Amino acid sequence: MTTWHLARGFRFAGIHSGLRASEPARLDLALIVSNLPAVAAGVFTQNRVCAAPVHVCRERLPSSAVRGIVICSGNANACTGQQGLDDARRMTALAAESIGVDARQMLVCSTGVIGRLLPMAVMESGIPKAAKELAEGDEALERAARTILTTDTRPKIRTRALNEYCITGFAKGAAMIGPNMATMLAFVLTDAPIDVADLAALAPVAADQSFNCISVEGHTSTNDTLLFLANGAGPKLKGKALEQFRQAAIEVCAELARDMAADAEGASHLVTIHVEGTRTGAEARTIAKTVAESVLVKTAIFGADPNWGRIVSAAGYAGVPFAESQLSLTLGDFLLYDKGTPLPFDAAAVSSYMKANRELTMRLTFTLGGGRCTFYTCDLTYDYVRLNADYTT
Amino acid sequence: MTTWHLARGFRFAGIHSGLRASEPARLDLALIVSNLPAVAAGVFTQNRVCAAPVHVCRERLPSSAVRGIVICSGNANACTGQQGLDDARRMTALAAESIGVDARQMLVCSTGVIGRLLPMAVMESGIPKAAKELAEGDEALERAARTILTTDTRPKIRTRALNEYCITGFAKGAAMIGPNMATMLAFVLTDAPIDVADLAALAPVAADQSFNCISVEGHTSTNDTLLFLANGAGPKLKGKALEQFRQAAIEVCAELARDMAADAEGASHLVTIHVEGTRTGAEARTIAKTVAESVLVKTAIFGADPNWGRIVSAAGYAGVPFAESQLSLTLGDFLLYDKGTPLPFDAAAVSSYMKANRELTMRLTFTLGGGRCTFYTCDLTYDYVRLNADYTT
Repeated sequence: MTTWHLARGFRFAGIHSGLRASEPARLDLALIVSNLPAVAAGVFTQNRVCAAPVHVCRERLPSSAVRGIVICSGNANACTGQQGLDDARRMTALAAESIGVDARQMLVCSTGVIGRLLPMAVMESGIPKAAKELAEGDEALERAARTILTTDTRPKIRTRALNEYCITGFAKGAAMIGPNMATMLAFVLTDAPIDVADLAALAPVAADQSFNCISVEGHTSTNDTLLFLANGAGPKLKGKALEQFRQAAIEVCAELARDMAADAEGASHLVTIHVEGTRTGAEARTIAKTVAESVLVKTAIFGADPNWGRIVSAAGYAGVPFAESQLSLTLGDFLLYDKGTPLPFDAAAVSSYMKANRELTMRLTFTLGGGRCTFYTCDLTYDYVRLNADYTT
Repeated sequence: MTTWHLARGFRFAGIHSGLRASEPARLDLALIVSNLPAVAAGVFTQNRVCAAPVHVCRERLPSSAVRGIVICSGNANACTGQQGLDDARRMTALAAESIGVDARQMLVCSTGVIGRLLPMAVMESGIPKAAKELAEGDEALERAARTILTTDTRPKIRTRALNEYCITGFAKGAAMIGPNMATMLAFVLTDAPIDVADLAALAPVAADQSFNCISVEGHTSTNDTLLFLANGAGPKLKGKALEQFRQAAIEVCAELARDMAADAEGASHLVTIHVEGTRTGAEARTIAKTVAESVLVKTAIFGADPNWGRIVSAAGYAGVPFAESQLSLTLGDFLLYDKGTPLPFDAAAVSSYMKANRELTMRLTFTLGGGRCTFYTCDLTYDYVRLNADYTT
């Protein structure tokens, strides 16, 4: 039994409202409530088609008076037009009424199937019911973390204790995960006192160093949301204390991101891609992302096929200028391509490395500069195809 | 038995040289020879990592004195460093010697596994042997068209007769096919008299309207090559006659491109994506390509899952600015999303449409302008994963 570092003054609930029709009854409606008004900031999908809850959160953030978040899983409330926006706002009003705050102090997230209107009767009865279950503690946190899952196989919780406060993070996401985020929801709660401008500045930096360094298949979701809530009273953190908080918050996000890649739909391998020696970090990430999203690379990893030319050729179409003589590739401990020249290698040994290890590492080393990036992805398996071939039907 | 329109003065050969070790013996070495020096132009992969034969062709084109092309299948001669370049040039020298022309009059193409040095002893004996088999006629053409195949299930030949001349095209390609071309080789031969500048201008336009409008998984190959050879004697075509030739050549390329998408690895559906009403044709193609390469769209099509939100959301992350109210989506005859609003639909009927038809059509209609694009792709199936999980092992 893990004990989490719990930020003070946050309560959680997770119930089965009936939004998911599945048997046995699955949790589908969660609440996060802060006992005090919290400073809040968010990062959202860059998709032009974005879900109604994302519109509502964007309108309301950043803020210094957020009291909570209502989250439903099973329906994305995306591509739902004006009705969807009305429904998302109604969810916040129901949650606010249940806990006795103003509707504009509540945020909302949804994840699930796109293009279906929410069954609002279910929300009308479910949200007050969820509010009655609000509680502090490990068990309530874990229940909320399970409630937001869709195709994930396990909850994702990461926490940190610093001197006088805690950071409590949880997330969901197992597919449609691409850089610029994709169906992922992540919540980072702290009892540290943080200035709203500092939190708003931190949010995109943390996303960039975590959720934007993983990819399952590169499909940017309509619903991606990362929300930070900080409810600490007293003088706001400054200087070194603020920097310590920033680092810890980024680490929590990075751990949650890695958890997502490790739990990717149908994946049998977690792949860490190190790209180094590019002109800039952005170039390194562009190359890592392109390799990570090559279906040919992903299927070769699934098959433990040491077909390394697919990795090198994916780097070649990333749009970053380089000459072949400026690139070397290592898979595990095997140097396969040395400054543009293929090396003889023991294909059976490389294949065995790929078969025997659930976690694989590849390293693309350029001789262009000091840029670097560490990126996580997974393989593409029969199970991924099966899971996604009949998601709605 | 199809009879092809054969451009005069071209001979073909296809043999089993031993480059492919597979049993039963597979054809793996082809020759195309023009009896007269031909005007030639090409379009090549935009991958930074490009195969040795691509380097050699680029050096030699455009040209007014090409006598032929030597093509091996089973080995890409890519990521093979200086040795690979030497080997590609040696292939042209062997072919030139066998038919009695200068080495620099020959072009070379390879397709297959990346990162392996060519077994040159096999080429030394195979190329002269292939030259002995050179012949005109349908049978020789078909044999060459079969020889260049890798994972294709069938040869791809498209021809046209115009008033006084013919266009004879053939191609291979079933994966690693992405816009900007990917492991595809295509050869378009004509006995029309074309000026070298006109042919060089036509080549990229034809590629853009054909091979750059298909995608299997978006992985740009190291070896993509489209070569045009025109060996007609006499006054070069001008004006209306030239335009007529250009249109026919583009049509041949478009038909070959569609053949590739229809024969994509493991595919069970050919999907035509019409995007219209964007500001420009380039915007339409960007959106079509993004939808075509979404693994979530492709798996939904495989599963006959009418999960249309994936299509709309893929359009949303293509990088083209639009509002949801400016987009409508039709799948087959079913209008699913009307200017930003989801319509009620019969999911079983849409799923039946997807199950019952090997060829599916989707139409994304924007209200932004007059841009349009027709794009071809396929679904992502268990067979695709199986084929690519153990390609080299």
